[in-house]
Amino acid sequence: MGVKAIIPFKKEGAKLRLGDFLTENEREELAISMLKDVLVALSESKIDEVEIITTGSRDEIEKEAQLNGALDLTSTLKVSVREDERGLNEVLNEAITEEKEPTLILMADVPLTTPESINEIIKHEEVVVIVPGRKGGTNALFLRRPYAFSVAYYGLSFSKHIETAKRRNLSHAVYDSFFISADIDEVEDLIELLIHGRGFSADYLRRIGVFLNVDKNSKSRAVVDRK
Amino acid sequence: MGVKAIIPFKKEGAKLRLGDFLTENEREELAISMLKDVLVALSESKIDEVEIITTGSRDEIEKEAQLNGALDLTSTLKVSVREDERGLNEVLNEAITEEKEPTLILMADVPLTTPESINEIIKHEEVVVIVPGRKGGTNALFLRRPYAFSVAYYGLSFSKHIETAKRRNLSHAVYDSFFISADIDEVEDLIELLIHGRGFSADYLRRIGVFLNVDKNSKSRAVVDRK
Repeated sequence: MGVKAIIPFKKEGAKLRLGDFLTENEREELAISMLKDVLVALSESKIDEVEIITTGSRDEIEKEAQLNGALDLTSTLKVSVREDERGLNEVLNEAITEEKEPTLILMADVPLTTPESINEIIKHEEVVVIVPGRKGGTNALFLRRPYAFSVAYYGLSFSKHIETAKRRNLSHAVYDSFFISADIDEVEDLIELLIHGRGFSADYLRRIGVFLNVDKNSKSRAVVDRK
Repeated sequence: MGVKAIIPFKKEGAKLRLGDFLTENEREELAISMLKDVLVALSESKIDEVEIITTGSRDEIEKEAQLNGALDLTSTLKVSVREDERGLNEVLNEAITEEKEPTLILMADVPLTTPESINEIIKHEEVVVIVPGRKGGTNALFLRRPYAFSVAYYGLSFSKHIETAKRRNLSHAVYDSFFISADIDEVEDLIELLIHGRGFSADYLRRIGVFLNVDKNSKSRAVVDRK
């Protein structure tokens, strides 16, 4: 039985909290680059089908994320894009109600995600696998029986998803991944991307002159800077 | 062949960046509680020997961390404490030069560390396993041939440790763990401890009235607050 992935994606007005550091156009480019990194990780994993649900234009996303060379020509990952302007929880809950196949919901802003971790997540026998984001978020959610679950993103979604699994008597596991926890929302999150990133989004940042400024005389860690 | 763990620990003046939120005494109590959580994780793992190297008083640490009920009476973990006032790199590099057994260097401020991840780390066949902390740090470092390596903590130690492994032709791996990446340095790091913590340090925070303040009308995540 195949496993399907769903990636909710927002391009317009993406990554507002990076607004003091990147222009609107740069934020959109970064968002697309991160989506491409996530697609590459999925294409190298055992997932064989991805649905991107976007608030933006379907054609545009298809062109940018799929056809502009993000995926290796040998990849057999089937990518489809669907437009939906509604909120994240509304869209996802409608999608999983109808879904009979095991489904992985993966955020689009976790560009450090590895194929190995995706494979480990979907190998779990538990009905619900929750992969925490920082500060109480949920960055990936694997549902063996999607129709039996209900998502509640925003706020402390990690705790809400644990509660939902318990209340519905669905076995659950927490999958421990630093690279999936590292969603890119704020300027200091770019540190992780510049240190650990090997894909499109780290490359994009370097191309527009974003770099790590390390004060060698200080014990403190690096800060993000721009040429 | 057994695996030994080394934990560098600083109690006096610990966790200065929490200074606006916790008193000096509270910061020290929190530091000791986190050390106890790390010891509990080690005691439930396959590690059988731990050396705590501390800048503080040996007797005091022994009393607080070991004898005050941190470890289960059935635990066979052998814990020793050694005083050393020198800097982290100096102390650790001297210790590993003499060390013939595989050694895990684990930070004392990663209270969410699980026994499962410790076991997975020391199962690696690579000579060097690096577990990233946030912002370029190294929160755990497993050395199969400690005498062949040299540590360089502070700053972007993750990249420095990768470079050292490459330069010395030592095979290396990166182990991906959110819970080990979550070192507790700043006030907002306490969010992770309050959400995911089940041990002494999360308990301590709750006891002194630290809690998560969630604005239910906002999409943003929680902030740490105090009663």
